[in-house]
Amino acid sequence: MLQFKAVTLSALVGVFSTSLLAAPSPITDSQKETAEQLIQTALNSDMGYDIVTSLTTEVGPRLGGSEAEARARNWGAELGKELGFDRVSIEEFTMPFWDRGHLHITLTSPYQQPLYGTALGGAAPSESEVNADVVYFRDIHALTDIKDKELKGKIAFVDGDAMVKSQTGAGYGQANQRRRIGWQHAQRGGASALVVRSVGSDSHRFPHTGMMSKNGDEWATIPVIAVSNPDADHLRRLHQANKPLSMSLHSESKWKGEVSSGNVILDIIGSEKPEEIVLIGGHLDSWDLGTGAVDDGAGVAITTAAAALIAKLPKRPKRTIRVVMFGAEEVGLLGAFAYAKQHEANLANHVVATESDFGAQTVWQLVSNVNSDATQLVDDIAKILSPLGIIRGGSDVAGGGPDIIPLAAKGVPTIRLNQNGRDYFDLHHTPDDTLDKINPEELAQNIAAYAASIYLLADTDVDLKGAK
Amino acid sequence: MLQFKAVTLSALVGVFSTSLLAAPSPITDSQKETAEQLIQTALNSDMGYDIVTSLTTEVGPRLGGSEAEARARNWGAELGKELGFDRVSIEEFTMPFWDRGHLHITLTSPYQQPLYGTALGGAAPSESEVNADVVYFRDIHALTDIKDKELKGKIAFVDGDAMVKSQTGAGYGQANQRRRIGWQHAQRGGASALVVRSVGSDSHRFPHTGMMSKNGDEWATIPVIAVSNPDADHLRRLHQANKPLSMSLHSESKWKGEVSSGNVILDIIGSEKPEEIVLIGGHLDSWDLGTGAVDDGAGVAITTAAAALIAKLPKRPKRTIRVVMFGAEEVGLLGAFAYAKQHEANLANHVVATESDFGAQTVWQLVSNVNSDATQLVDDIAKILSPLGIIRGGSDVAGGGPDIIPLAAKGVPTIRLNQNGRDYFDLHHTPDDTLDKINPEELAQNIAAYAASIYLLADTDVDLKGAK
Ligand SMILES: [Zn+2]
Ligand SMILES: [Zn+2]
Repeated sequence: MLQFKAVTLSALVGVFSTSLLAAPSPITDSQKETAEQLIQTALNSDMGYDIVTSLTTEVGPRLGGSEAEARARNWGAELGKELGFDRVSIEEFTMPFWDRGHLHITLTSPYQQPLYGTALGGAAPSESEVNADVVYFRDIHALTDIKDKELKGKIAFVDGDAMVKSQTGAGYGQANQRRRIGWQHAQRGGASALVVRSVGSDSHRFPHTGMMSKNGDEWATIPVIAVSNPDADHLRRLHQANKPLSMSLHSESKWKGEVSSGNVILDIIGSEKPEEIVLIGGHLDSWDLGTGAVDDGAGVAITTAAAALIAKLPKRPKRTIRVVMFGAEEVGLLGAFAYAKQHEANLANHVVATESDFGAQTVWQLVSNVNSDATQLVDDIAKILSPLGIIRGGSDVAGGGPDIIPLAAKGVPTIRLNQNGRDYFDLHHTPDDTLDKINPEELAQNIAAYAASIYLLADTDVDLKGAK
Repeated sequence: MLQFKAVTLSALVGVFSTSLLAAPSPITDSQKETAEQLIQTALNSDMGYDIVTSLTTEVGPRLGGSEAEARARNWGAELGKELGFDRVSIEEFTMPFWDRGHLHITLTSPYQQPLYGTALGGAAPSESEVNADVVYFRDIHALTDIKDKELKGKIAFVDGDAMVKSQTGAGYGQANQRRRIGWQHAQRGGASALVVRSVGSDSHRFPHTGMMSKNGDEWATIPVIAVSNPDADHLRRLHQANKPLSMSLHSESKWKGEVSSGNVILDIIGSEKPEEIVLIGGHLDSWDLGTGAVDDGAGVAITTAAAALIAKLPKRPKRTIRVVMFGAEEVGLLGAFAYAKQHEANLANHVVATESDFGAQTVWQLVSNVNSDATQLVDDIAKILSPLGIIRGGSDVAGGGPDIIPLAAKGVPTIRLNQNGRDYFDLHHTPDDTLDKINPEELAQNIAAYAASIYLLADTDVDLKGAK
């Protein structure tokens, strides 16, 4: 019995019949009706698009630990007050600051040609201009095979392939190896610098930034630069034509000591069990190259708007709904770890947590990791989301989003509204992550899905504890 | 009677029937058969794609007047010899050299944010860092309305809209006004610098370069910078939110005196009327931001490959086929004017001319400007091209391509194989104009169309002189 029309998403609309329901639902008729009204309201609202427009325009890029991220926190706290949240706070923490600085990188043999590159997070500066011959590696495996010291005085270039596109972003881990661990082997080989093919799935002249991995407690001591996929294609063709490659590069990227960051906390206080927390959120920081629209202005907008729509209901749900705008996610989940630590004593009261951090395309699947008795509740939430084009996925899928990792590790149950991420890696961590890439209707579908699910999770008496 | 299958283009294939032919064709059965064989050979050949791969990879970006453009001329002459042209020469000329140099441009109010910009061709350097408030103009008309001196000490920003996309590129002229003449009004107003929204039709973080127009003999005396469409959107939103805008910029772009450029001439000498010339070509120079794949590596590849396929026929056509790789097109058609001057005495022997300089997407229309008696010949060529998805367009369309302008002005007849240019202005004059953007099958369709038409124009006895 469908009580609403998903007007803007008619092509995606699925159908379910109440006759398929086997057991009595833990969702009351009144709760279901409210959830369906929230979906309609969200689909017809511009609130989410207005939020991401405001964040990307009025704050702009906001690297973790920067002055811009501090402005973003003030923006978030002001927004929470305007939207009628009951309690707004900023929880600060300290962190080491990595600054990109200026880079130039040029092919110097077989001829002069500027390359489109950017430093990778954690990379060291070049002390002076590095001018060196380039040793070409077809992929990360070829680099990890080298002997110690065999790259002395050289620049290593690690090719590979553009990231394979998929709905789930499954190609990211494999492509990411060259970004994550390449420096350790280049450094072991004695290379003066490492240049890698960007991790993205696009074929535009944009480099993709992102953090490297530490080796124990060690960061790279050499410059590490990602160049765009078309630039990497170019280098490969020159290598295949047996042209000798050399480059000149100068990078100022470096660690600059301890600075402040913080998480912004916006609460809608529960009417019956205010101590129990349903936690949602996104990350407030972004990489500095773009304006962080899809990563993760969208997630901040989706979760804040969803909670704000719930706040407009005549009555608060039973449990507290908490929106966390996490700080310093990109540079190592620093806000997430700070939150888990600062709220350590209270984690048992976090009944479920989830984050939106995979762009702004539509949600297609609801997965969860809650106790077996609570699985029925999530199944029934999925049925209410079905007209939005959303199916039920696994009931034992650990996760909930990057910033939820420290909470999930402490036993906090999770759900996740999986988005279509097919085009996400064309944009994320590049200069091209800007507002024009967000489709307002797709964003609204996300908000509809979050508003309905979060309302139901906050207004239920079902205990979700005991994730698998 | 179709004697061939356009295997790679089956979806585009049209049909014509010989019963529609009213008058006896000036094209003989044997010529028609040869043209149809050339189409098949071209569709199954990689030659064109190999040529543009070689040019963009082995030469790279090649700004008019640069060392790279000189390497491109040597590349072109070598290629001509390898492909069996009968006569290969380089005709040099001198030109003033404009160098882009280094630019940085940053938004400084309401906050610090790097902008993605590039200097426009002909712009002056900033003597030192320009730090100034920005005056926003919604479009070029708002700027041309200003009073003298009213922008003293300011940076003018001229917004506008992303170029309207179309098959014919019709939106370029209108969008281009801000690039062409904006500086004259900014300078009249006393502005310290001009920043304009890029001319392109894309929504990527790439600025579009291109020449400004001279005012009489005067070039700009201020820096002129184009920023990407997403950056311009951002500035517009900040302006609409009543935020005070200011910028800091430093540009090294400047004129650097006289240098050498040149045209590369590749001839297939006619077997019966060697003095009569059918001229085709593209331009060898490119802007320096990308590698000039679609603008105009594609045109060089299309026309060179088409002529080379004709050179492989058992017998040379009656007239000479001349491929001209024009130098320094982007910076003012300098190679085209040099060619027209150097061959002034012989222009009456140029029986028809055409250029490929609109990217690498498929040809969809054949237009012409030849004498009335010769129109039937072009009509009949169009019928032979019909299975490639090409229709006959106007028989009184002046043109033939940018580098043909000086020839057409002296009465040389022209044809043009119009390409689909819908996506052309997403790429041209940007860093994103790279090889990966070319579809080899679409490129081969172009070569098929050129090979058949140029063969028929070179082997005919029809006089084309007397264009309207
Ligand atoms: Zn993210
Ligand atoms: Zn061109």
